[in-house]
Amino acid sequence: MKLEMICTGEEILAGQIVDTNAAWLGNQLMEQGFEMQRRTTVGDRLADLLEVFQERSQHADIILVNGGLGPTADDLSAQAMADAMGVVLVQNKQWLTVLEQWFKSRGTKLSQSNLKQTMLPEGAIMVDNPVGTACGFRVKLNRAWLFFTPGVPSEFKQMVEQQFIPFVGQQSLEKQQVDVSKLLTLGMGESTMAQLLESLDWPAGITLGYRSFTPYLELKLIARNVSDANQQLALQQAEKLLQDAIVARNQPCLAAEVHRLLVDTGQTLALAESLTGGEISSQLVAFAGSSSYLQHCVVSYCNLAKTELLQVAEQTISDYSEVSMQCVAQMVAGTSSALGDVQQTDYAVATSGVAGPGGGSADNPVGTVVIGVKVGETVHCQKILIAGSRGRAYVRDLSVAVTLDMLRRAILGTPPVVDYSYINRLESRKFAIAEL
Amino acid sequence: MKLEMICTGEEILAGQIVDTNAAWLGNQLMEQGFEMQRRTTVGDRLADLLEVFQERSQHADIILVNGGLGPTADDLSAQAMADAMGVVLVQNKQWLTVLEQWFKSRGTKLSQSNLKQTMLPEGAIMVDNPVGTACGFRVKLNRAWLFFTPGVPSEFKQMVEQQFIPFVGQQSLEKQQVDVSKLLTLGMGESTMAQLLESLDWPAGITLGYRSFTPYLELKLIARNVSDANQQLALQQAEKLLQDAIVARNQPCLAAEVHRLLVDTGQTLALAESLTGGEISSQLVAFAGSSSYLQHCVVSYCNLAKTELLQVAEQTISDYSEVSMQCVAQMVAGTSSALGDVQQTDYAVATSGVAGPGGGSADNPVGTVVIGVKVGETVHCQKILIAGSRGRAYVRDLSVAVTLDMLRRAILGTPPVVDYSYINRLESRKFAIAEL
Repeated sequence: MKLEMICTGEEILAGQIVDTNAAWLGNQLMEQGFEMQRRTTVGDRLADLLEVFQERSQHADIILVNGGLGPTADDLSAQAMADAMGVVLVQNKQWLTVLEQWFKSRGTKLSQSNLKQTMLPEGAIMVDNPVGTACGFRVKLNRAWLFFTPGVPSEFKQMVEQQFIPFVGQQSLEKQQVDVSKLLTLGMGESTMAQLLESLDWPAGITLGYRSFTPYLELKLIARNVSDANQQLALQQAEKLLQDAIVARNQPCLAAEVHRLLVDTGQTLALAESLTGGEISSQLVAFAGSSSYLQHCVVSYCNLAKTELLQVAEQTISDYSEVSMQCVAQMVAGTSSALGDVQQTDYAVATSGVAGPGGGSADNPVGTVVIGVKVGETVHCQKILIAGSRGRAYVRDLSVAVTLDMLRRAILGTPPVVDYSYINRLESRKFAIAEL
Repeated sequence: MKLEMICTGEEILAGQIVDTNAAWLGNQLMEQGFEMQRRTTVGDRLADLLEVFQERSQHADIILVNGGLGPTADDLSAQAMADAMGVVLVQNKQWLTVLEQWFKSRGTKLSQSNLKQTMLPEGAIMVDNPVGTACGFRVKLNRAWLFFTPGVPSEFKQMVEQQFIPFVGQQSLEKQQVDVSKLLTLGMGESTMAQLLESLDWPAGITLGYRSFTPYLELKLIARNVSDANQQLALQQAEKLLQDAIVARNQPCLAAEVHRLLVDTGQTLALAESLTGGEISSQLVAFAGSSSYLQHCVVSYCNLAKTELLQVAEQTISDYSEVSMQCVAQMVAGTSSALGDVQQTDYAVATSGVAGPGGGSADNPVGTVVIGVKVGETVHCQKILIAGSRGRAYVRDLSVAVTLDMLRRAILGTPPVVDYSYINRLESRKFAIAEL
């Protein structure tokens, strides 16, 4: 069975937006055991759409078409498909009813432009969209089923998961049993990891896949028709090799793992973010239930905020600067007891550093970062140097990742400070809360 | 002239990596006045590559091929192209000399796998790569020039800028003058906007483009060979129609606009984020120079943080709840003077609300959000209801956007509270700082 994708939209072809729908679909299909053969991207011109529908329908069995179902004049997918089939557009009464109710429930009326979204090629089979005004549809042309989906990512994803993948499953006799294990890693480069892993033998049917979302690297073990025992073997082999670089198993991100651990343990957390500016807090608060452990976060961007809100001693800043282990240790202690000693949190973290591009000094060049984590009555601090030449966002993203990993390790009862192959540690030290 | 792109690589087709090269190229070409017609993405299989080279060379005049020039066994672009042309691979002596010197200068020897990178289809014209071991090349097949480039982004970009775009310029007589104006909007749905805009006449050569990144909608006025006067006319026409929905002009995001305004005015800001959990702070801190105006942010996630760190009265919370105008007004005042009355900031904002999916009540259902902004001695508050059914991330993202927009309007001296067509306002009220 030949599976293809057609992406439509001037903004994708001209690079106004990066086509994340396409990557997401490729990934989903692979995890379900289906392989995509080709992806064609065209703009919004009617003639181009018509040509690509006619052409690809002669080569593929199933084609997912993405985009061009919106209410505006440049949304031409349905019209182009009708032209390619030599039929007219007709109103889908079922979808008209859905839209009328949708707008009624929002206290507004169905507009002329939304009416356009009820017009499908004659003979098309409507595909429900429970979260948007653009229904999908599918039609048969030449050897192919063309399956039309909306471009809005949330609507697209729901339609693919709930309707397209089951449809592909029905049409296909070649479905494989595919299992995917994901190891989220931090601190090991892709070429290093690939060299380590690819020097080993893997059970037949196991493929390795890498997905990099800076600064994380996700390793996927894709098992096609592999026994549970052999999957376990492969997983153990990977874990043995990667060791401390693994920061989560089958989680979408490191914040999700930290959130899970904190919810599970029922312990509390306070944050003090200078360098990272609230990003750690925001990543945790993205998950429902974070209020069960997160007391507060202080973004102490100016030095007065450090002394007033976090009780850092002025002397500490003047003696050691705000990008120092001493200052960060006091920030950790200060945020932990900011709501009163009785309310002291179980865990607390703080960050300070020079994100750049300006602000560096001989002592603290751009990329200098200090992170502290409180466990019990001890604050574990480290000062690292991140390649500042990689830009402000990179320095901040990597600092967030290392902080979350130190917190994760603290919660698990392992030493919070650990080596990452491409991060240069300048110093590390423990402080007793009592002496701060 | 028909211009196409062919992207190669299993990892791109299967979504292991998002194809940022393709988006970048589309953007570059558009800004240079060239239009891409189609993009085809295939994997690493020799037969698929051969087929796509033969097929597209019958339709396009210039095809940029990306990827598959590396040293490993799955890099097959040169071989596939030779097969498609019916020729053999021959060694390019010029590139061999370059590589020998490259490795000599690094103290290593040319490896067998790198030797592979000197083999080009017979008759190919070598294209220099000053930053990598894979040279590019171009060949003519059917009506097309196929221009081969390496997949490594830094090498790809340099080759496109220095060699491909000049080559396209030489081949083309149709270069257009393309100018793009971008209006970032908030609070108007895509169908409403399209209906408004598309009912008007636009100067010849103007195309409208929409880019949605929830909750924002960006309108692009793309002008192809349009006089400055007519571009101005089109821009004025769009601005007149969209009015308050416009939140930035030619900026990548609303936070960038707020950052620019605060840096320009030299005034200070404090934040208190409950619902939004540090996201507003993090979006501002992403820009270098934010330390010139951002004093601090308090993420007061629990009620004790509101009373201890922001001086919200316990009585206020028990009388009105934490999701109330009264509480948020006190949070605004509290964060503004958290570092002492002398240090009171020029602007301050606060957010509180129920992001869901749990935590809703009859009084404050999921999606209830209160936002306050301090201007001078007044706090402007509004309580809105966001469609909680659209999920926690949507409630938070839209709250961040409305807060940034209220702050933007405050800095510009316009009333901070304004109507957004799809947001239901429950209440709005001004408080004098003195009475809080």
